[in-house]
Amino acid sequence: MASVDVPVALLGYGTVGSAVNRLLNEQAGDIERATGHRLRVVKALVRDLDLERGFPPDGGVLTTDVRDIVDDPDITIVAEVMGGVEPAGEHVLQLLRGGKHVVTANKQLVAQRGAELFDAASGAGVQLRFEASVCAAIPVIKVLRESLVVTNVHRVLGIVNGTTNFMLTEMEAGKTYDEALVEAQERGFAEADPTADVSGADAAAKMAILATVAFNSRYALADVETIGIDAITPLDVAAARELDMVIRLVGAARLLDGKVDVRVSPALIDRHHPLAAVEGAFNAVMLQGDAIREITLEGPGAGGVETASAVIADMASVIGTMGTGFLQNDPVWRSLPRLEPGENRSPFYFHLAVDDKPGVLARVTTALAEREVSVARLLQHQNGDGAALHIVTHDTRQGALDEALAAITAMPEVRRKPMAFPVVSERGVAELGWA
Amino acid sequence: MASVDVPVALLGYGTVGSAVNRLLNEQAGDIERATGHRLRVVKALVRDLDLERGFPPDGGVLTTDVRDIVDDPDITIVAEVMGGVEPAGEHVLQLLRGGKHVVTANKQLVAQRGAELFDAASGAGVQLRFEASVCAAIPVIKVLRESLVVTNVHRVLGIVNGTTNFMLTEMEAGKTYDEALVEAQERGFAEADPTADVSGADAAAKMAILATVAFNSRYALADVETIGIDAITPLDVAAARELDMVIRLVGAARLLDGKVDVRVSPALIDRHHPLAAVEGAFNAVMLQGDAIREITLEGPGAGGVETASAVIADMASVIGTMGTGFLQNDPVWRSLPRLEPGENRSPFYFHLAVDDKPGVLARVTTALAEREVSVARLLQHQNGDGAALHIVTHDTRQGALDEALAAITAMPEVRRKPMAFPVVSERGVAELGWA
Repeated sequence: MASVDVPVALLGYGTVGSAVNRLLNEQAGDIERATGHRLRVVKALVRDLDLERGFPPDGGVLTTDVRDIVDDPDITIVAEVMGGVEPAGEHVLQLLRGGKHVVTANKQLVAQRGAELFDAASGAGVQLRFEASVCAAIPVIKVLRESLVVTNVHRVLGIVNGTTNFMLTEMEAGKTYDEALVEAQERGFAEADPTADVSGADAAAKMAILATVAFNSRYALADVETIGIDAITPLDVAAARELDMVIRLVGAARLLDGKVDVRVSPALIDRHHPLAAVEGAFNAVMLQGDAIREITLEGPGAGGVETASAVIADMASVIGTMGTGFLQNDPVWRSLPRLEPGENRSPFYFHLAVDDKPGVLARVTTALAEREVSVARLLQHQNGDGAALHIVTHDTRQGALDEALAAITAMPEVRRKPMAFPVVSERGVAELGWA
Repeated sequence: MASVDVPVALLGYGTVGSAVNRLLNEQAGDIERATGHRLRVVKALVRDLDLERGFPPDGGVLTTDVRDIVDDPDITIVAEVMGGVEPAGEHVLQLLRGGKHVVTANKQLVAQRGAELFDAASGAGVQLRFEASVCAAIPVIKVLRESLVVTNVHRVLGIVNGTTNFMLTEMEAGKTYDEALVEAQERGFAEADPTADVSGADAAAKMAILATVAFNSRYALADVETIGIDAITPLDVAAARELDMVIRLVGAARLLDGKVDVRVSPALIDRHHPLAAVEGAFNAVMLQGDAIREITLEGPGAGGVETASAVIADMASVIGTMGTGFLQNDPVWRSLPRLEPGENRSPFYFHLAVDDKPGVLARVTTALAEREVSVARLLQHQNGDGAALHIVTHDTRQGALDEALAAITAMPEVRRKPMAFPVVSERGVAELGWA
């Protein structure tokens, strides 16, 4: 059990680190009410001692040598808020092996080196917590691990990247992709190089972590099927609107017949679905499970203070659960197979640009019917000298759809390879009824 | 620290109690992964040993004598799932004083006797958890107490009664109040006597608990200003639609200049606000705080299995935090004054039925202006031989509005006393910007 005064250390003292120190000072009374303890930053690892900093720490706190933290027996909890996989990973490993609890805000570190880090934590009997690594202050990790212990969560749907959600919301309001990107950059939501966001890589790391926690089975980042938003055009956005849907970058993790599937891609969301209401740079995660039907958590998915709030909550949770068995058995992951890619099931949307000739519609619908892909909705428009077909399927096997689309693409009247988007419309509610 | 095998007891073995026992059996593996422990129901207090029961417990588990639980030194955790304030309250008090941790699903018990129970828990060094008492499986208590420790939550907005939300959603779809009530009763959402739901009393108990936890300051149930939905007519619903809003029963708890205000009443919600998307029997709670801007949790707010899931999560959390200082300092509530009723601030909506005579509009708007109530929107319609005025104010002091409405009601052209509804439109987001 920790003492009333708890000395803690930070790896990094940038936006998040300085916010952690500021909140620990300004909200010390609240923290003591919640935990019975006072947390005090006694060391912070930085690269440059002389840099000008917001909320500068007390004299002697900053250090450039991680050994000042590793070797200090008074420090029992360290927050990693420096970012980057290296050297953060080696530092965290060293701290865990040295018997210190670690809290991290680093999604790439957890997604890429989690297995090794959890193993080290378990070996040393300490905790590694990572709430801030997914959706900042939205407490989805704690809710999954501590609140939904008996609910057999089988599906996690998330809008977990604020930048792309902001851009798609702006495109819905009439902007082009490039205009939306510039706006996101000007508002500080997107980096100068937006690749990590628009490619889906950022969302993929978060979904790998969420799937691992939700299903208690490690899911490798490399196995997340990822499609970004870079190919989305105003035409797609307009088509979605016509179907009373919106386009969002959606992460979907599923446990289906004991197999796991995790993917990130643009998806069409029915306007009455709770995720369709998530606008701008906000994030939301919907958790579907047997006992809870579905619980949705929405909030700001990024931001320095928001991230710092989650880091401190994790530190408080470490203190609150030290010395008990709770949440120290991370390595007890089940080993679950991956769902074969073609076995993924969903309703899908795609549109076709075709020559406006007799028989095209019949050939397209026959190609679908032959693979048992059933059409739920179909809209046809004139489009210049050709026709545009917008098709929404019923729930279908992705492999069957891919085969049908290959056959359709090979037809001479079809002008280019269509892109299929999953459709999110059904909720977990209907499956179970009111108990 | 608890042993691997944790014997637990239940007070009550009805819908929730039998679901707890079933989930503890069926999900034993998940619970052990999360906590390192196996929970086993060894005693359950019932009134009638011979009643036919779903998921009947093992022989010897049922008892009619609470002393079989109080006096059993092997039992360290008891879940109260019998409901009612008495004798549940006396049993819980006895158990806490006897050094047993208690988990309860009983909102009336916590709202009415919480102070005494927390005091007993604190005195004996045990925990009293109550996640299931508010919104069933939506983990709003844990999130407030363990995740948002540094965020200075200053406002809680909630749709915390599924019955009334279902009825208002049905009225939006065209039903009258009576038709909506019958539908809710047929679907099992409303009791034969729906008073506790439609009067707002159920929501008031939940809001008193949420305010107490959010602001760390006990708020008495009797002090919650409560207006039910029984006076809502299709006319109100239609007026809301015309303003691009929906009517919902909303609980609002605020911390304003160090003073607390908690109220439950029908409110108009802007269609773009996340709470407007909460349809049918679902619940949602929006938490606004400095560091998080706002986090919204949505899900099913009732149901036997959902409630059982929250009860078990609380038991797991007790085990996970036993022996540490975390969350055992409930009695450290701050003492905060109540906001004087007239000092509450909000934008408001009201409508007036007036004689269609020259000068009425001028007299009404003058009465508002004289009390510094500023009009944001005004719609006027012919209505039979009179006129209907729909007015939305800017943010205003409730006392000023009440005075203005009293003056307006006294005018000979005004046909009846208007009812004012708070308007929920602004979000916490704008206040802080992106950090």
